Amino acid sequence: MIFPAQEYRDRVARLQTAMGARGVDALLLTNPADLFYTTGFLTRFWESPARPWFVVVPGSGAPIAVIPSIGAELMGRTWLDDIRTWHAPNPVDDGVGLLADTLAQTLPARGAIGVPMGLETHLRMPMADFERLRARLAPRRIVDATDIVQRVREVKSGPEIDRIRAICAIAGRAFARVPGFAAVGRPLADVFRDFQIALLNEGADWVSYVAGGAGPDGYGDVISPAGAQPLQPGDVLMLDTGAVKDGYFCDFDRNFAIGPASDSARRAHAALWQATEDTLAALRPGLRACDVHALLWQGLEKQGATPASGRLGHGLGVTLTEWPSFTPLDQTPLRAGMVLTLEPGCMLGPGRMMVQEENIVLHEHGAELLSPRVPAELPEVLA
Amino acid sequence: MIFPAQEYRDRVARLQTAMGARGVDALLLTNPADLFYTTGFLTRFWESPARPWFVVVPGSGAPIAVIPSIGAELMGRTWLDDIRTWHAPNPVDDGVGLLADTLAQTLPARGAIGVPMGLETHLRMPMADFERLRARLAPRRIVDATDIVQRVREVKSGPEIDRIRAICAIAGRAFARVPGFAAVGRPLADVFRDFQIALLNEGADWVSYVAGGAGPDGYGDVISPAGAQPLQPGDVLMLDTGAVKDGYFCDFDRNFAIGPASDSARRAHAALWQATEDTLAALRPGLRACDVHALLWQGLEKQGATPASGRLGHGLGVTLTEWPSFTPLDQTPLRAGMVLTLEPGCMLGPGRMMVQEENIVLHEHGAELLSPRVPAELPEVLA
Repeated sequence: MIFPAQEYRDRVARLQTAMGARGVDALLLTNPADLFYTTGFLTRFWESPARPWFVVVPGSGAPIAVIPSIGAELMGRTWLDDIRTWHAPNPVDDGVGLLADTLAQTLPARGAIGVPMGLETHLRMPMADFERLRARLAPRRIVDATDIVQRVREVKSGPEIDRIRAICAIAGRAFARVPGFAAVGRPLADVFRDFQIALLNEGADWVSYVAGGAGPDGYGDVISPAGAQPLQPGDVLMLDTGAVKDGYFCDFDRNFAIGPASDSARRAHAALWQATEDTLAALRPGLRACDVHALLWQGLEKQGATPASGRLGHGLGVTLTEWPSFTPLDQTPLRAGMVLTLEPGCMLGPGRMMVQEENIVLHEHGAELLSPRVPAELPEVLA
Repeated sequence: MIFPAQEYRDRVARLQTAMGARGVDALLLTNPADLFYTTGFLTRFWESPARPWFVVVPGSGAPIAVIPSIGAELMGRTWLDDIRTWHAPNPVDDGVGLLADTLAQTLPARGAIGVPMGLETHLRMPMADFERLRARLAPRRIVDATDIVQRVREVKSGPEIDRIRAICAIAGRAFARVPGFAAVGRPLADVFRDFQIALLNEGADWVSYVAGGAGPDGYGDVISPAGAQPLQPGDVLMLDTGAVKDGYFCDFDRNFAIGPASDSARRAHAALWQATEDTLAALRPGLRACDVHALLWQGLEKQGATPASGRLGHGLGVTLTEWPSFTPLDQTPLRAGMVLTLEPGCMLGPGRMMVQEENIVLHEHGAELLSPRVPAELPEVLA
């Protein structure tokens, strides 16, 4: 386990307080992040879609794990005592009976089971099994628990912030190595590979996400895998990573000019830097997510840059991205303890953008950087 | 795109034939594997749970992508022409309206929309949005399409098999490097890190899965991340990987004795090897998944080994694991073109197991190995 049991007890107590306030008798959790958050169960085995995994959080007391037997040994090393298993995958009953029995014992015959069903969630179990479960448990109701889980998970504890700080430092050291392997003529795929190796060498446990791009004065998108095209003089190279240490993510990018930077690339980089700088100074609990979008957007316009559409940052923690989203529509209030990314982007021309990203934790008095600050001037990688 | 457009047209035509036979007017696909399979859309951005992505396969013609605008550029490089986007995440309507309109245009007012809902599936969109979609589309029905998708995807084309062969060869070369970095006193976490670096150096695009264990004469489970404990003389070290090249996975493991192997470890390794050897010789299309389980189980018993519970192999391709599952209950018939893992495990004592895994493709005449065959004797890593 990454944290002492008390850390998980505190998390579950916060969930239970929110459940009580909303009349929810038990939570049913199915996704890797929620299971890791409540139990400490950490594995890359989620990469296999074959088996569902369940954790039931009752109204009081410790959660109950209802999981495939292949995970019993690893779950047995967490703080949970009540671990119920079946042999999965089972085409006749893949855990539904065991889960229904567990829930039926846990909550009253007219109780409410909370399941996260809203924005930025999905249920990691077969839909047909969910419908079977709902029928088995009637007249108990299944209700949306998105708000319960998100309001608790979004405020990070000190030990969580320390873990995110650690992986941000690892990624910062890996980014510092980029000029050693990004050179004119090197295929982007090789640069991506070397960057992943640098992240591992600097201490990442694994690298769940790398994306980026390279093109004259910018790139067309920010989610592409690498192609075979070699870096060219005049390219702006962007690398973005969600590397993982102890189950916690960083999520930030860096830009590099390949050869001397053009004036427009330099100006775009400076505009993004200044918009971030101004927003960092203004961030306070009580602002809403949409206010941060406005700060960044207006900051870019003030610098004469054309803001890119899309969200301009988001939450961060046990997944690469978490709510809230810095969009014009997200009204989520910022709270002390939130770990967030600021991710302004601007357009340099049709299909040419530049994005800069930082990771921060919000305190009562304002933002603390977790990523090493982007340099004020666009770094140049010279041959 | 990894393959020419014709490869995707062929896949979609096979899906449409199966849809026609079952009275399904359109398929709604939501997960990374199904989108990659039908369109060629490949990104690690799925690591962000923030946004849903949709592909609609109509009864005839090319699929329609209904996706967040952040993916428009990358989807535009696939063979699809009809790409509809919205700005996500949107707390008011996160693509449901656009998707409902698209489906309503695509199928008749009393048509059937197929969604994979069965074993080894899940729906990657918010449950509340799925319920909204269902209400919006009534009286159109949503029906289970698990069988349609699985029967098509499970038979790999020649170009797909070539990709899996390539990543198997990469992982084979990385496993050959293990004696260079697995040594007495090295923490398991460092061994995992070096193994990932070896996979990247040998040509993997990224490493989605590494698990393993080490202990005297075996390990307690096969899904754990690495701990800080150093390797000890007498340990059996197992490393298992799902590395990725061009979106295709390998999934196999290897065992190494740290110092001279004990008799019981050597015997277990030999029993697993022989059970695999006998099963490789017996594999033919027409056997069912449960028959393969029986072959491996009985092969282990014949060698005097105690088989481990759980599935003893599975499908493989665009995810780390695919159906069918080699369990006593899975009746799926084997067909030529399936790519499969054989994964027999045996117990050496309480909480001590050994697992050996190979990757194969099934032809009409029998199995072809894709992974380099496990050596008949347990390899020893000597100081």
